[in-house]
Amino acid sequence: MQGRGRGEDMQQGAQARFEAGLLRKILVVPVDGSHWVNMEILLKHLHYRGHQLTVIRSKSSWYIQESTPHYTSINVKLMEDEVDLSFYEKLLQRTLDIRRKGPVLQFLHQQMEMSSMQMLGHGICAKMAALMLNNSVLMTQLKDVQFDLVLTDPGLPIGVLLAHYLHLPMVYNVRWINTGDGHFIIAPSPISFVPVTGSMLGDRMEFLQRVQNLLHYVMGFLQEHFIILPLYQELISRHFSPATDLLSMQRSADLWLMRADFVFEFPRPTMPNVVYVAGFQCRPAQPLPADLEKFMQSSGEHGVVLMSLGTLISALPMEITERIAAAFARLPQNVIWRYMGEKPSTLGNNTLLVDWLPQNDLLGHPKTRVFVAHGGTNGLYEAIYHGVPVLGLPLLFDQFDNVLRLQARGAARALEVATLSTEEVLEALQDLLENPSYRSSMERLSRLHRDWPLSPLDSATFWIEYVIRNKGTAHLRSEAYSLPWYSYHSLDVVTLLLVVIGIFLWAIVYVCRKLCHRTCQKNKSKRD
Amino acid sequence: MQGRGRGEDMQQGAQARFEAGLLRKILVVPVDGSHWVNMEILLKHLHYRGHQLTVIRSKSSWYIQESTPHYTSINVKLMEDEVDLSFYEKLLQRTLDIRRKGPVLQFLHQQMEMSSMQMLGHGICAKMAALMLNNSVLMTQLKDVQFDLVLTDPGLPIGVLLAHYLHLPMVYNVRWINTGDGHFIIAPSPISFVPVTGSMLGDRMEFLQRVQNLLHYVMGFLQEHFIILPLYQELISRHFSPATDLLSMQRSADLWLMRADFVFEFPRPTMPNVVYVAGFQCRPAQPLPADLEKFMQSSGEHGVVLMSLGTLISALPMEITERIAAAFARLPQNVIWRYMGEKPSTLGNNTLLVDWLPQNDLLGHPKTRVFVAHGGTNGLYEAIYHGVPVLGLPLLFDQFDNVLRLQARGAARALEVATLSTEEVLEALQDLLENPSYRSSMERLSRLHRDWPLSPLDSATFWIEYVIRNKGTAHLRSEAYSLPWYSYHSLDVVTLLLVVIGIFLWAIVYVCRKLCHRTCQKNKSKRD
Repeated sequence: MQGRGRGEDMQQGAQARFEAGLLRKILVVPVDGSHWVNMEILLKHLHYRGHQLTVIRSKSSWYIQESTPHYTSINVKLMEDEVDLSFYEKLLQRTLDIRRKGPVLQFLHQQMEMSSMQMLGHGICAKMAALMLNNSVLMTQLKDVQFDLVLTDPGLPIGVLLAHYLHLPMVYNVRWINTGDGHFIIAPSPISFVPVTGSMLGDRMEFLQRVQNLLHYVMGFLQEHFIILPLYQELISRHFSPATDLLSMQRSADLWLMRADFVFEFPRPTMPNVVYVAGFQCRPAQPLPADLEKFMQSSGEHGVVLMSLGTLISALPMEITERIAAAFARLPQNVIWRYMGEKPSTLGNNTLLVDWLPQNDLLGHPKTRVFVAHGGTNGLYEAIYHGVPVLGLPLLFDQFDNVLRLQARGAARALEVATLSTEEVLEALQDLLENPSYRSSMERLSRLHRDWPLSPLDSATFWIEYVIRNKGTAHLRSEAYSLPWYSYHSLDVVTLLLVVIGIFLWAIVYVCRKLCHRTCQKNKSKRD
Repeated sequence: MQGRGRGEDMQQGAQARFEAGLLRKILVVPVDGSHWVNMEILLKHLHYRGHQLTVIRSKSSWYIQESTPHYTSINVKLMEDEVDLSFYEKLLQRTLDIRRKGPVLQFLHQQMEMSSMQMLGHGICAKMAALMLNNSVLMTQLKDVQFDLVLTDPGLPIGVLLAHYLHLPMVYNVRWINTGDGHFIIAPSPISFVPVTGSMLGDRMEFLQRVQNLLHYVMGFLQEHFIILPLYQELISRHFSPATDLLSMQRSADLWLMRADFVFEFPRPTMPNVVYVAGFQCRPAQPLPADLEKFMQSSGEHGVVLMSLGTLISALPMEITERIAAAFARLPQNVIWRYMGEKPSTLGNNTLLVDWLPQNDLLGHPKTRVFVAHGGTNGLYEAIYHGVPVLGLPLLFDQFDNVLRLQARGAARALEVATLSTEEVLEALQDLLENPSYRSSMERLSRLHRDWPLSPLDSATFWIEYVIRNKGTAHLRSEAYSLPWYSYHSLDVVTLLLVVIGIFLWAIVYVCRKLCHRTCQKNKSKRD
């Protein structure tokens, strides 16, 4: 290998590798929505490497197509059969209401909202998983294929349960699991400098912020142990060893392909079986369709502002949309806005509304000046890759934390969508457009993000094949979680030592007092 | 980068990179002895990439040559001016005596020996560092070169002090620092499953073993804080900010090239700026000198046993040597033994004594069956690379822990050198030669160790150049150690919460008692 990267090997034809018996059968259990966007790119790459992919999906899936040239699919009942995308519009409305409240009420409401979402989501997921595992025809069919690996997004645990049921090595394409950042399940996460998902805190915390972080941690712990895990316990005790639970199954993945990069994420402890592959969906910009290119060029020296709110939310409430449109109308820049609602009355001539946009190619266009984004990680890594500063309009989930990370590096501004005004949007946009520090910060992040010995996509592929080749990664899994929590934290050992020290001190005091007493008595008897 | 490894780029000529202004000046501060063996290989590779290297050495150095084609050197006064290699022979004699004692006495003596060694070693080191920093001519000379980076082995901290003095980015080629495994200084290391260096424990510990591990940890902590750090404090308060200390300087390295691989090391938490490069000195075997090749071939189907005790110890005490030689004499195999003492009387005709041997090439020879080794990491990684099972005869330092790691993976046997008999050596060798499980375990480790997207040497070079290109790695350094220890462990935050909960409970009890009291009185007055 010396003096020669694995990259070259990647370019060998699939045919040669097929003949060498290197091509494998992979069972893929994705999470629908924005998570599918990058899973699909990984699957195309694995297909290009010649592997056979089988994807588990719902026939009512939001984004995951029935069998394509890249994979065959198996339809089962999943969450998408009970929930449609309008769920997120309602969730957004409730979140905006919550964010108009003061900090204490906001915290409490946010936790209640999280709890009820988890109860709903994991409730459906556990029901669907039970249906699947009880379906002996399906299970036999899956067993008979003799897969080599399960590749899953553990945001919902159906893939985890399937991998254990089929006794297969398991690789995660992961960002979130149970109540937040996947690291919290696998790596030590001292909450003194590791902010909890949803806390909207950085890694440099004052005392009160650390208190806040602990409260977030405790709430997450309670939700995990008292809401999520019990939902799966009946199913697990029926199909698996009764001594096990979902958490230990989730921890036992062979490899975590973590969609994170410390260019963006605050530095934190990690484990040897975590590989960082953030931004593997990013690629150099391709030429735009002619009409879009013409619109870009018509912006002249001012350039273009790009706005998109991701895959789950098609439009904001009308009054907020009107305010944003009014701010855009006052810019000298052109604006391209992915928007699917009613046309706002304040829309300027400079603003082009589109149903869909080639986001990566637009972000890589030299005329693009600022990206107005909801702060999903896919979009933010694309912005980092192409070095475009961000105006964050975070709406849901981790988006607030994500935008905060770019702000902490001087590469973004953020606005509170629930309360924003036209003036605020305009001021923030002008600041981002006129102050060169945002772009230079983002370009620095871009340089660092692209400075890898192996691209994130090649890295992801290499490690997936590594797990298949070596039939798992037992040698990379730590003994940490075979211990009960009090042993993990050495509380039993420290207690023993404190007792021993206590007895020792007590013995010294006892002997001293006895000696003292005897001496006193002797002296007394002498005096007598 | 996609579909193409960094390896290709590595093959570009140094000339082209020189013209592109990519070649840099690196100040190298190595540790003499076995640590130099792999540092030198890294330097040759950096030289081959066209960088200009300046090595700090003592004119009495044991192994580091005066300027070579690969580097220029600067002679300063270092530990080697006050200590010669006979020091290690005496240390070995004391260690053998200690290891003949029972476990409690052994622990106490071992800790005393460690403490006095640290007092001696770091005492000299601090003195030499002070001489160097006080030498204004030398410091001006070093400043004037305008180095881009300090590359150092932090086993002794002179490089750390120099890098801070010169305000330069700093990369470690590291295994040990202060009192053991470098991880303990940078990454969370729960002692419930992370064995402390010198503890001779694995990662799966019973309760009493965890107690033992805690005791080793406490002793290491005390040695670090009460022996090592104070030795440097005067020097630091003279030349640096008085608020700083050696530990925080050591923690602040931009990158840790860790000479470890989890094929060998027990899995444990790590940090984003740690890169694993163990075994970068290993390479495919080259042809042997004709006489050695003839000796190898004359072994026939039985093959050859290889023995070497590394760079620091030239020979064992005579009575132990005699026992080993007698065991070798009874083998059908040929034996090649790197040995520099008096010829043992029990030496068999099958055993060839040599002053020096091409260890890597011999380990890679198809006739080599077993490697009898002291258990230094250089030799063990070469054995792993070539898949040769090991009979460990650990003598000093981490060698006991190293051999234990291979034993835990079924790829080695170990003997207690202090008490070994001819029969024991023979039994262990026959077991290793006849039981195929040792070789197949070692071959499995070998396959895993060689299964990398980028070779350890290319990886080391890539990351060194990464630090130079990006002028450090501020974005990879965690906020962990800007906190005082009680905040790091969240003790302050937990105390506050316990007090709040306490007050809350007290208030409830108080109110309940008041209410109860009032109700009782009312009832009483009613009854009255």
